[in-house]
Amino acid sequence: MSSDFGKNLRVSIFGQSHSAAIGAVLDGLPSGYRIDLDALQAFADRRRAVDVLSTARREGDKIRVVSGLFEDKTCGAPLCAIIENTDVRSADYDKIRFLPRPSHADFTSFEKYAFRDHRGGGHFSSRLTAPLCAAGGIAKQILSEFGIYAGAHVQKIKDISDTPFDPVAVKRADFSVCETGSPCLDKNAAEKMKAAILSAKSECDSVGGVVECAVLGLPAGLGEPNFGGVENVLSANLFGIPAVKGVEFGNGFDAVSLFGSQNNDEFKVENGKIVTATNRAGGVNGGITNGMPLIFRVAFKPTASIFKEQNSVNLQSGKEETLLISGRHDPCIAVRAVPVVESVAYLTALDLYLGAQKDKLNRG
Amino acid sequence: MSSDFGKNLRVSIFGQSHSAAIGAVLDGLPSGYRIDLDALQAFADRRRAVDVLSTARREGDKIRVVSGLFEDKTCGAPLCAIIENTDVRSADYDKIRFLPRPSHADFTSFEKYAFRDHRGGGHFSSRLTAPLCAAGGIAKQILSEFGIYAGAHVQKIKDISDTPFDPVAVKRADFSVCETGSPCLDKNAAEKMKAAILSAKSECDSVGGVVECAVLGLPAGLGEPNFGGVENVLSANLFGIPAVKGVEFGNGFDAVSLFGSQNNDEFKVENGKIVTATNRAGGVNGGITNGMPLIFRVAFKPTASIFKEQNSVNLQSGKEETLLISGRHDPCIAVRAVPVVESVAYLTALDLYLGAQKDKLNRG
Amino acid sequence: MSSDFGKNLRVSIFGQSHSAAIGAVLDGLPSGYRIDLDALQAFADRRRAVDVLSTARREGDKIRVVSGLFEDKTCGAPLCAIIENTDVRSADYDKIRFLPRPSHADFTSFEKYAFRDHRGGGHFSSRLTAPLCAAGGIAKQILSEFGIYAGAHVQKIKDISDTPFDPVAVKRADFSVCETGSPCLDKNAAEKMKAAILSAKSECDSVGGVVECAVLGLPAGLGEPNFGGVENVLSANLFGIPAVKGVEFGNGFDAVSLFGSQNNDEFKVENGKIVTATNRAGGVNGGITNGMPLIFRVAFKPTASIFKEQNSVNLQSGKEETLLISGRHDPCIAVRAVPVVESVAYLTALDLYLGAQKDKLNRG
Amino acid sequence: MSSDFGKNLRVSIFGQSHSAAIGAVLDGLPSGYRIDLDALQAFADRRRAVDVLSTARREGDKIRVVSGLFEDKTCGAPLCAIIENTDVRSADYDKIRFLPRPSHADFTSFEKYAFRDHRGGGHFSSRLTAPLCAAGGIAKQILSEFGIYAGAHVQKIKDISDTPFDPVAVKRADFSVCETGSPCLDKNAAEKMKAAILSAKSECDSVGGVVECAVLGLPAGLGEPNFGGVENVLSANLFGIPAVKGVEFGNGFDAVSLFGSQNNDEFKVENGKIVTATNRAGGVNGGITNGMPLIFRVAFKPTASIFKEQNSVNLQSGKEETLLISGRHDPCIAVRAVPVVESVAYLTALDLYLGAQKDKLNRG
Repeated sequence: MSSDFGKNLRVSIFGQSHSAAIGAVLDGLPSGYRIDLDALQAFADRRRAVDVLSTARREGDKIRVVSGLFEDKTCGAPLCAIIENTDVRSADYDKIRFLPRPSHADFTSFEKYAFRDHRGGGHFSSRLTAPLCAAGGIAKQILSEFGIYAGAHVQKIKDISDTPFDPVAVKRADFSVCETGSPCLDKNAAEKMKAAILSAKSECDSVGGVVECAVLGLPAGLGEPNFGGVENVLSANLFGIPAVKGVEFGNGFDAVSLFGSQNNDEFKVENGKIVTATNRAGGVNGGITNGMPLIFRVAFKPTASIFKEQNSVNLQSGKEETLLISGRHDPCIAVRAVPVVESVAYLTALDLYLGAQKDKLNRG
Repeated sequence: MSSDFGKNLRVSIFGQSHSAAIGAVLDGLPSGYRIDLDALQAFADRRRAVDVLSTARREGDKIRVVSGLFEDKTCGAPLCAIIENTDVRSADYDKIRFLPRPSHADFTSFEKYAFRDHRGGGHFSSRLTAPLCAAGGIAKQILSEFGIYAGAHVQKIKDISDTPFDPVAVKRADFSVCETGSPCLDKNAAEKMKAAILSAKSECDSVGGVVECAVLGLPAGLGEPNFGGVENVLSANLFGIPAVKGVEFGNGFDAVSLFGSQNNDEFKVENGKIVTATNRAGGVNGGITNGMPLIFRVAFKPTASIFKEQNSVNLQSGKEETLLISGRHDPCIAVRAVPVVESVAYLTALDLYLGAQKDKLNRG
Repeated sequence: MSSDFGKNLRVSIFGQSHSAAIGAVLDGLPSGYRIDLDALQAFADRRRAVDVLSTARREGDKIRVVSGLFEDKTCGAPLCAIIENTDVRSADYDKIRFLPRPSHADFTSFEKYAFRDHRGGGHFSSRLTAPLCAAGGIAKQILSEFGIYAGAHVQKIKDISDTPFDPVAVKRADFSVCETGSPCLDKNAAEKMKAAILSAKSECDSVGGVVECAVLGLPAGLGEPNFGGVENVLSANLFGIPAVKGVEFGNGFDAVSLFGSQNNDEFKVENGKIVTATNRAGGVNGGITNGMPLIFRVAFKPTASIFKEQNSVNLQSGKEETLLISGRHDPCIAVRAVPVVESVAYLTALDLYLGAQKDKLNRG
Repeated sequence: MSSDFGKNLRVSIFGQSHSAAIGAVLDGLPSGYRIDLDALQAFADRRRAVDVLSTARREGDKIRVVSGLFEDKTCGAPLCAIIENTDVRSADYDKIRFLPRPSHADFTSFEKYAFRDHRGGGHFSSRLTAPLCAAGGIAKQILSEFGIYAGAHVQKIKDISDTPFDPVAVKRADFSVCETGSPCLDKNAAEKMKAAILSAKSECDSVGGVVECAVLGLPAGLGEPNFGGVENVLSANLFGIPAVKGVEFGNGFDAVSLFGSQNNDEFKVENGKIVTATNRAGGVNGGITNGMPLIFRVAFKPTASIFKEQNSVNLQSGKEETLLISGRHDPCIAVRAVPVVESVAYLTALDLYLGAQKDKLNRG
């Protein structure tokens, strides 16, 4: 497995959907930073199952930090956050042990591991985003002391689009609406998306979505060029969220329809600082932050678990069979992914921020 | 810097656009594989400046392998391939030393390094894709012995689309048209794209493009889950190619407009093997290959170097100035990127293939 | 911090001496291997405080595996083992918060972290070898299925030496005496060492020791040359055990007094297999195992915590002060280190064993 | 292979004894540091064959830096240094292709790679320490700007000992005698060692040696605890030098004969700074530098290439044969290893120094 990531801040995620517990270890946190455990819990709770849009599974998801803090502050030691698994119904999954669900990791994990924990998707479950949010929430609190903030929203579901972030003018205040429960910046878009999701659900089907994220306050100079840049590291980490199938920065794929003169960001001076007049690059040139907001979008495929009969093949008999999935699943995984995307953004940003401290030795 | 990548196969790229030489070190190649140096040169030559679509810079780009081979075969030792830089006109770049070109790495590299080689973009130059192709060509020859092949084409430029690969039926023969010089599978699309590029060029402008790539013959089970999966590693490596701003797998961003029932890949048995009837996932579930063709697309922004006057800011004086770029630049970087994308695909595939050998210890 | 190690098998150790819990995450275990949790507990219990030679702290050290197993077998998912901390007397350490104990990490951790958990040495405590043994015990069980076994003993304390392992003929049966509680192979040596330790203890002092370890059954070809070899990786991991100040392989430092003709290992054929007649190299040539027993020795300094008055400097006032340490400490850390050294040997061996699977692609 | 090392400063070594060239890539050097190429050449020349003590092979070993510099200063781009191989007599090695030399990597490399370059030991040759010195010499020049200096000497050969460094009072001036050609600090010891080496040579035999190294000027706080500490990283890198079989820090193995009260380093205040009165720890506690000189010793085994008949086994026939080695080999590898040990010390120190910059974010 390879459930750890990060260079200066190492994050290791452990657990299966139905194991005794799940959790995360963060190794490399700077020391002396106060962590508000209530705020941490509140942040992580944003990804929990909350309303009709989400799975019926009710998880307490109480985060227990068993190491890494002393007198409520980070102390340089690795921080381990544990979440006990409760409300587990493993029997729901007996039939899929050898009958892989289409577009899940059931087949590939069987091919790779021969023996694996099939219950609820095992280690491949979206449930593993709970410790990811616990980890991200820690990074968030530390980065806030440097004026670095991330915010995300569901920017698109089917043909319904939310107002995108203004890539130049996006402000921390823009994040508050999603921090308080809405998946969208625009209320109407939120209503329409909700209707589309419920409609899909009523058809035993699911939908995908695009999550857009902005990170503010990153200084220029973060990220290494070529293969260690912001885009490299962030995309690698984002594809670690289940169901992600695409990542783009700034204009991304839309840049393909533009001329260079429509996609370039010219420089100007603003308040004595060099900035770009536009931000089509999404805040990154040559893999390195330029001081503008970091803007990226993440494509989530429709939830693979749908409640229609599908064709599968029995892994033991080798015979084709049909499968009707039971269990509890979100009809649109993108909705709950909003704080998960923020978490990956925070963890990646803190890793890069730590790494960039060495650049202070660079000389003109 | 962070110009190395890979876990089991380590690739380290060195050089600047105008340094004495550029090159690559490959550490971890399996031993005993014959390398045809003429075939290697021919593969790498595909990215060279060849016709009206490309920069006027004429580079011999002769690959010299100074280590890692013995009696024409890999011998377990790190392989170093060197390309001497010739036809360098550094004076062309004097004016941009402190006057950053919009949407280049000039500004961010200055912010990060304080002192850097500005000539031709230094280490951030697309020229560094030459050793990347040398490295990729080595991986290609080794993987061919396992029946693994990659092919890419320019799938889109502005509103002109090439025929996409059939994600289920794509065959090695489909790669031959691009291997022999065309950027597209479809001749008409190639002509239209050429016209669009020349039109942009005549306007002193540039265009972007999407490169689509397929990798055939990958066994099921490659890639580690979560943060070490095929998508994670491949996207991280692809963003190391200059001008890449987006990466997607299978249906990618388009999956957002689909229902789960339209995006799932049902299983069936074909010739005694479990396959999927469709391949919307692009060959990867849960980060792990499923044995279907690996399909991904890479968005290249329009070349940042355009020959129109643009606004910039002098890094020494802090004053706004206008800039008219000179030098030699492709009007569409995506065209020459085709073998570069293949190279990254090969290097990543070989890394993952080596890593997956340990899975043979897994037991049912 | 950097409390993780390993390439193919990643081990992440967390916890402080007085945090709520300590533990380890193992990422990359092969799947399908049965883990006997009672045997695991028994192995880890070997490092616990057991008799007059050890600290008075009584730790239950019950290992709880919260993930990574399914139906009692490894399942490919990261395995997390947690040990709750009990019998903690933090007040014992109040006076050392700003008064560093000589030859402990108190001063250096303060210099590095500014804020750190001083209680019981925090994350630098020897207590962190408990999860290391939990992790090592897992690796041990898996490697036993490949016929790989490690055994260690206290080879030297002051001028008292235990019989060294026969570097050619050492057998698994030789390990049993230490597995059942003796620190030495030779009973007389054990008695003499015990007397020496108790004598030091009665003087409020401490002693060091050499632990010798043999690993049997390793196939030839493990380890990467140069910087990824067996000696490189094993020494790096061994220095992660508190109080280790030296590591040597085979003849080690004694080779300096020998001629090449006295130190070389000539080849011969035995039972159709190429072996060396002697094993002065300790089973490693050029960083790679040669199929002979792997033999290495680890120097542990005398326990830094002694109960004599020592000079220190107050970190807040900057004034010199004297310090008399209280708390509970082993007079000779080498005794309890025996299973810890074995654990590091097992974890390193499994990592290398996994990595060497890719060598099956190498061709003659 | 795994011929790269380092975290913040990545070093990749390439080449074989008889390949066209050998070299090193350094990725992560801080930018803006002037590199004096003549001084670099002079430093690297210290390891060259110089007198009767060394091999008869005459190597120009001219270092060519092909990238990474601009206007004679590091520019953030990876630096590649290449040394062309000359004076190669490959035919000398024909007979050892399938007849492994005792205590060389001939057998293990064959077992691992099946096909490998046997000529002169291929990639396992001590010749690869030439690019290591080129790399080390770069790090040395950069570190000198921070007041960090390393010096080494041959401390022991057989029963002849050189004056050890005073672990507290060692000064940069103490390094000058070895920098100007002597292997020892003490002239008499140098003469005696020379005699011992020549005596062994005349017997067609070889001797080993201990190299002691001191690093001055390292600030307190370098190194990560547990598995990323100074001792861990440095030992891992030192074992990458051919023939190294042991590494110890401070009192090392001798600490085993001492009481804790004899081995501890008490604190005191000197010139307003907290120092230790003694330095038995060799400048490292808990893996982290304490601001005292870093002191370590490296055991080199006697050169494996001796000119006596030895027993071997033919790898093709599987039959026992005798072998008489020809070729050119130092009778004592430790002599030329002095600048190699310094190089590894510099490269490791710079890596750790870069990594420790992030600690400035730690707060009290």
